Amino acid sequence: MFSAKFQTFDDTADPASAAPRIAALRAALKRRGLDGFVVPRADRHQNEYVPENEERIAYLAGFTGSAGFLLVLPDKAVLFTDGRYTLQAREQTDPAIFTLVNSVETAPSSWIEQNLTEGTRLGYDPWLHTAEGVERLAKACSKAGAILEPVADNPVDEIWTDRPAPPLGPIVPHDPRFAGEPTDDKLKRIAAEIGKQRADALVISDPHNIAWTFNIRGSDVAHTPLPLAFAMIPKAGRPVLYVDGRKLSNSVRDRLATLADIREPDALTADLARLGATQAAVLLDQATAADALAKLVEQASGKATRAADPVTALKAVKNATEIAGAHAAQARDGAAMARFLAWFDREAPAGTLTEIAAVEALETFRRDGGLLKDISFPSISGAGPNGAIVHYRVTNKSNRPIRPGELFLIDSGGQYEDGTTDITRTIAVGTPTAEMRTRFTQVLRGHIAIARAVFPDGISGAQLDTLARQFLWQAGVDFDHGTGHGVGSYLSVHEGPARISKLGSAPLKRGMILSNEPGYYKEGAFGIRIENLVLVVEAPPMPGAEKPMNAFQTLTLAPIDRRLIDVSQMTADEIAWLDSYHARVAETLAPLVDKDTANWLAAATRPLLNR
Amino acid sequence: MFSAKFQTFDDTADPASAAPRIAALRAALKRRGLDGFVVPRADRHQNEYVPENEERIAYLAGFTGSAGFLLVLPDKAVLFTDGRYTLQAREQTDPAIFTLVNSVETAPSSWIEQNLTEGTRLGYDPWLHTAEGVERLAKACSKAGAILEPVADNPVDEIWTDRPAPPLGPIVPHDPRFAGEPTDDKLKRIAAEIGKQRADALVISDPHNIAWTFNIRGSDVAHTPLPLAFAMIPKAGRPVLYVDGRKLSNSVRDRLATLADIREPDALTADLARLGATQAAVLLDQATAADALAKLVEQASGKATRAADPVTALKAVKNATEIAGAHAAQARDGAAMARFLAWFDREAPAGTLTEIAAVEALETFRRDGGLLKDISFPSISGAGPNGAIVHYRVTNKSNRPIRPGELFLIDSGGQYEDGTTDITRTIAVGTPTAEMRTRFTQVLRGHIAIARAVFPDGISGAQLDTLARQFLWQAGVDFDHGTGHGVGSYLSVHEGPARISKLGSAPLKRGMILSNEPGYYKEGAFGIRIENLVLVVEAPPMPGAEKPMNAFQTLTLAPIDRRLIDVSQMTADEIAWLDSYHARVAETLAPLVDKDTANWLAAATRPLLNR
Repeated sequence: MFSAKFQTFDDTADPASAAPRIAALRAALKRRGLDGFVVPRADRHQNEYVPENEERIAYLAGFTGSAGFLLVLPDKAVLFTDGRYTLQAREQTDPAIFTLVNSVETAPSSWIEQNLTEGTRLGYDPWLHTAEGVERLAKACSKAGAILEPVADNPVDEIWTDRPAPPLGPIVPHDPRFAGEPTDDKLKRIAAEIGKQRADALVISDPHNIAWTFNIRGSDVAHTPLPLAFAMIPKAGRPVLYVDGRKLSNSVRDRLATLADIREPDALTADLARLGATQAAVLLDQATAADALAKLVEQASGKATRAADPVTALKAVKNATEIAGAHAAQARDGAAMARFLAWFDREAPAGTLTEIAAVEALETFRRDGGLLKDISFPSISGAGPNGAIVHYRVTNKSNRPIRPGELFLIDSGGQYEDGTTDITRTIAVGTPTAEMRTRFTQVLRGHIAIARAVFPDGISGAQLDTLARQFLWQAGVDFDHGTGHGVGSYLSVHEGPARISKLGSAPLKRGMILSNEPGYYKEGAFGIRIENLVLVVEAPPMPGAEKPMNAFQTLTLAPIDRRLIDVSQMTADEIAWLDSYHARVAETLAPLVDKDTANWLAAATRPLLNR
Repeated sequence: MFSAKFQTFDDTADPASAAPRIAALRAALKRRGLDGFVVPRADRHQNEYVPENEERIAYLAGFTGSAGFLLVLPDKAVLFTDGRYTLQAREQTDPAIFTLVNSVETAPSSWIEQNLTEGTRLGYDPWLHTAEGVERLAKACSKAGAILEPVADNPVDEIWTDRPAPPLGPIVPHDPRFAGEPTDDKLKRIAAEIGKQRADALVISDPHNIAWTFNIRGSDVAHTPLPLAFAMIPKAGRPVLYVDGRKLSNSVRDRLATLADIREPDALTADLARLGATQAAVLLDQATAADALAKLVEQASGKATRAADPVTALKAVKNATEIAGAHAAQARDGAAMARFLAWFDREAPAGTLTEIAAVEALETFRRDGGLLKDISFPSISGAGPNGAIVHYRVTNKSNRPIRPGELFLIDSGGQYEDGTTDITRTIAVGTPTAEMRTRFTQVLRGHIAIARAVFPDGISGAQLDTLARQFLWQAGVDFDHGTGHGVGSYLSVHEGPARISKLGSAPLKRGMILSNEPGYYKEGAFGIRIENLVLVVEAPPMPGAEKPMNAFQTLTLAPIDRRLIDVSQMTADEIAWLDSYHARVAETLAPLVDKDTANWLAAATRPLLNR
């Protein structure tokens, strides 16, 4: 009845292949006169999701986590992962070959500085690191007396005989009904930003920014409709889009050709060298541009200006069409969530549902809407203690029944052409404990504090983050992740530059969409997270106000579990916010769902003090 | 009956002297082959209060504000001041000679970059700028094609024929009963920090840090017991204190000689050159060390390591003795405040009090305690619209009566050997308007949110600042200053590194003392500020807590005007905090004051809902 098309539950570990592969890599390095090599989990665009042919760490070591850094030396192979992946790395890799290091405690550069032997020649692929990343490695090598050397072609790819071909996902236009601004206008705004930075041209290395600029979408990686490509935007003149021609239908090619020259990706290096030779200042995105790009410009005597790609800031502020699309996508997604939650409430008390069954049901309800293009990331579906693992991924092996008396946490989202969604709900199965209700209420009060926040222009997410944590702190607890991240419009579910966290220094601007997702995790017991997406808007007028203020409008529409709320801990303002939110949820979703769900919805959204 | 000994109300403007002085300076510059000269409002230690002989801007231009930057060119003299001093600068300077520029809108370096003629030779005194400041100026000059040149002796001092002698304030020991840690122990901790920074020696250029390290106090500048001096602390070996011997009594000299070599300030340059010649790494405080010091080290082929003087962080964390002293000082100061507030409530309704009379009364009550060494800064005493001027200084000219129907704001503090205080109270005279009460209550709720905050280790003031503003923001208003600054122990009332503001990135540590002073200012109408000092302490135990938390303990003891509180806007928790604070105020101060004041205190501190 239910199925997941966009997510698998495999355990792909294959530790046995690592030994011959690492041996082959060492031999290849020796032939090149290198002692070691660094393998980041990265492609040429520093993407969060990378295509199969860029999964070099998975190929070499068997480790499939979404972040990692592998250092292969003659007598040692060190795999760096952050705390999220400690357990997974241990299960997926052969301890006879790999030393595991926590990258938060010891960054690869620190390890290199402290452990590399003097004279070691360490290779790296300049296409897979940013210029800043290479500087960090070079500094560490220099302190250890080692030499960091770029390679012209990647030795891992040389030994990877059955390496998959690069993806050729077809590129499709992003309809003006969803994009809301023609590429011509976007290019004018980008050119103005290039001028402000006193540069002659911008290289767009972030495929999200190419998708936004050219109003196109692709399908080269999972869950995000990215076209892997580069672009060069001159301050004045015609842009160039570097993309594999096989991804373009004739009609898409014709449309793009009205906006830009279309060239094969290989042409970028020659074009950059030619531009550099005119001593041009070329703007390179510090977050995603490969070290190789900076070197090309500089070796041709141009100036590589490393800064934030201005498109990142332009893209983050959604236009009226994108905002209308977000509302439509949220109503559709909310209806699927309501069907799921109603179904879950009927089925769960029997104690036979599993984490995977829940994922399959939710994806099916989303697909039933008819417009789902993909899920926006693999759903996190955690019952009981699994809910306390912040980045839990359910597999056939880890899958467990959802039992009465437990909390169930499900974090999921959909990709629709009119918007990207991301929602977390925590649901009580059976009767929750007093502790669960207290913690849920503390998390909820933090969520409401963000939802109700009013703040002037120029305020950053770092300045609001504390609002989400204050009630947990007053109880001596906290959560170990940011409160919110930016979200794209039919693009990445994690989008910069703004976020609500200690590190969120970008000012919050009207039109930005962010998540609001405080949580609480009790290891080995339960996890709580309440996540809605919010839009930065002008605050409603206030009598006596002296300057315009900003506020958040909550976009996500789905009930928050009333059974987990201890109303006695809440203020009247907080209760009023939740009741008004629930009234909006009911009003918007009821017409979109079946009668059973509508009945469930009415009960799930009744006012808090109406027991 | 009342008098102010530590504060004057003069208007010292004398715009007429500027013309001949600027002409003399231009002639002196010409003799040296310079076209222009920059004059910062600074001494060799970047002190906030500078001695008279360092008031070069006041001498040249007549401007007496505590921040400014004067650029003298052949045909132009530009005075840069921030928004606080726009009005004062206009009143004190001759518009025929000086162009006034708002330094927040246009920094001196931006102005120089945009306006200096190519080839201009601009002089500066390397003892009056930090190395970072010089780099900024040099970069600006270079962009304008001008040349920035250090001078060996300051041309302003050359023409300043009646320049006062440098101060020779006697240095006194800071009693162990107040200091709480012997210099020996402090030196050991400092040496460890020097080692951590991989330096060979530290030059202490900040006199606050010299006072703390050597457990001495001086009297070279107003309101802060600073001994102007330098010190050199080697990683191992005997420190050297560079101080004018005339400031030392025999007994003080003998005591200091057990800890350090004592040399005249002139010896520093030769010693630094000698140290530099050994290629030593010398740690220089980036905030206060003069560019001249860095140049001395580097020209002798040493390494100048610019970083935060580690003493700044050590000094900020008060020890148990200093904390006990703070409590004693606050009780004493609170008793004076209570006497003042009771007196004010009796006298003000007649409408004949003035801003100056209030300052005189308050200082007199503080002196009556018998232990007041100085006020910690000139009291800000503003009635009605003057209360809305954040850095208002009352003068004989600006002095105005305090009228019924107005708010009166008084921000003041005392220097006691056991602690430095800083308190602001806003008082209703007659019946306040509903608007005044609403705004006061919003400010008070922000004050209470800081006072009640609970937060983990590592949290900075920037992360708490929003708590103080949230209720004002929700009403569409804000205040244009930080929420709090660090405070010294019988040292500066403004002490780094921590502060509660957007810029406060230093983590808050147990033992730090900060101010909590949100406000609201309605231009031309009234000003509100509620300021208490708070101490960072371990939070009380909480059931179910998972990690130790920090909290603030309010140190300042004085009633907050109940007549200005609209209780209906407050939560039960907020009301409970204020009632409990008032109970502590009454309990602590009642035994310390006369009977009339005690009666007034009992009424002023009764529970909020007890009308």
